[in-house]
Amino acid sequence: MSGAAYVAGDWGTSNLRLYLCASDGRVLERRTGQGVAALRAAGSPDWTGVIKGATAGWDERLPVLLCGMVGADIGWQRVPYLPCPVDTAALAQACVPVPGTRVRIVPGLSCTNLHGAYDVMRGEETQVAGALRLEPRLRAGRHLLCLPGTHAKWAWLDAGSVTGFVTGASGELYALIQQHSVLVRAAAARPTDAGFAAALLQLDRHPQAAFAQLAFECRARQLAGEFDADTAAGYLSGLLVGSEVRAVLAEGGRPGEPVVLVGEAALCAAYGTALRHHSVPSHLLAGDDCVQAGLHAFIREELPRENP
Amino acid sequence: MSGAAYVAGDWGTSNLRLYLCASDGRVLERRTGQGVAALRAAGSPDWTGVIKGATAGWDERLPVLLCGMVGADIGWQRVPYLPCPVDTAALAQACVPVPGTRVRIVPGLSCTNLHGAYDVMRGEETQVAGALRLEPRLRAGRHLLCLPGTHAKWAWLDAGSVTGFVTGASGELYALIQQHSVLVRAAAARPTDAGFAAALLQLDRHPQAAFAQLAFECRARQLAGEFDADTAAGYLSGLLVGSEVRAVLAEGGRPGEPVVLVGEAALCAAYGTALRHHSVPSHLLAGDDCVQAGLHAFIREELPRENP
Repeated sequence: MSGAAYVAGDWGTSNLRLYLCASDGRVLERRTGQGVAALRAAGSPDWTGVIKGATAGWDERLPVLLCGMVGADIGWQRVPYLPCPVDTAALAQACVPVPGTRVRIVPGLSCTNLHGAYDVMRGEETQVAGALRLEPRLRAGRHLLCLPGTHAKWAWLDAGSVTGFVTGASGELYALIQQHSVLVRAAAARPTDAGFAAALLQLDRHPQAAFAQLAFECRARQLAGEFDADTAAGYLSGLLVGSEVRAVLAEGGRPGEPVVLVGEAALCAAYGTALRHHSVPSHLLAGDDCVQAGLHAFIREELPRENP
Repeated sequence: MSGAAYVAGDWGTSNLRLYLCASDGRVLERRTGQGVAALRAAGSPDWTGVIKGATAGWDERLPVLLCGMVGADIGWQRVPYLPCPVDTAALAQACVPVPGTRVRIVPGLSCTNLHGAYDVMRGEETQVAGALRLEPRLRAGRHLLCLPGTHAKWAWLDAGSVTGFVTGASGELYALIQQHSVLVRAAAARPTDAGFAAALLQLDRHPQAAFAQLAFECRARQLAGEFDADTAAGYLSGLLVGSEVRAVLAEGGRPGEPVVLVGEAALCAAYGTALRHHSVPSHLLAGDDCVQAGLHAFIREELPRENP
């Protein structure tokens, strides 16, 4: 396609999202494909063949830059985690070529988090780079980003570098409990705002309570007729998200600027609600926009070498 | 069988355990059968037929006393939860006859727990009554009992009455995460003491951390090579059990007497370890012994009316 300069891709556990892009980052064409987990489940994947099929008809000479679980041990090629602090330029320079192809894979990030534990992200580093590109004000000063998802990442920026982050598995725990446990009795429950708000208040009243105790309230309050299944689901969500927010504000410090939420709107809204409960403002950047902008930011560092 | 005075049974979600007992509570014969959940899954159960089959050959005139989920909405007949405070005599008097049978079902207990929330137990009330029978010292003064399980119950006794309790769904959450999540990567992991101890120390260092954050360490520390799957499983167990213990001691007050652990030995040992970490002694009563003793305590209140 005329004007195409590179192929960008987010190859995660569940999906492959490919973008044919112009040199200014404009998306000319989008395609989707199978995620890393489905390919692995089907046997030993022919990664080269999959990417060739997915980009069929596009200029084969274009560089391809991929982020996400494609660089994990379950992916195409294991690409390292760069230890924080890391800036966008360092990430771009550390993209790893896949031998015999025009594909490069973005590295992940690692850090020692605010609990003194080793922590990792893979895929979100590209969204952070995209947020820095889309919001130039984030390149100076200190900022807090929150990237909700299966494993939510809270990342601290200082002068454009990721200085550290912490992961909360709230998304995964919510899905597990909702699907498999007796605590929320409806598999198709739609979490209510009222349940979510009730959980935030309960966390204020009993900050020392164990999650396993408060989670049981989802069941007992349904038995009592206080909650329906949707309210119980909202309560569960509020317990998980609210606990993450409380911990980040208490241990990471209150941010001086609005928290930047990066991701899917409904999930970000839940984190925004919990932040607002603690009088912390936030605003939203769409996750897909940030992935594209981040891959473009890395490519800009790469392109001069590819197409001088 | 000669000397048989009653049939006692613990009919829970997963198992039916029946005991043919002498008037002094001695067990003359044991039988097992399907739990309530399996019977429900197979269609609309013929409860009378099941109990008739399970007691075949025993004197049909004997009274049968059952505790557990048989009295829940998924069981034979819904039997109420008695609001705390409740003593053994009140429980015995509130056992509900199943019309047209010689079966009675023990009620559950409800309370407003230390988090101000409605809470319930069903089955454990019988173990508490059994502990009171087996350890007469518990009938005076204030005591704290812990009954680990899928949904662990911590019950406060005052002068032989259950004044309140709190439930922690640690057992269920551990099983869910172990079986279905990416946080612990081996389905057959055997939790290590080292992992358990590491979690207790982490909770000391970061009491404000969210469970969803600390749980993610199970995964990240495996990626870092710090943990193997067994240590990650131990860490997960330590996070769950340790958080319950911390909350109970902080919000319920430190008990003046050793905590009485009632249940299966390995699970009780984990709670004992977490209590000892906070310099709180504990000792163990076997769960099965307590069920039998509790049903016997209730029957003693019933028998004079049945066999004057």
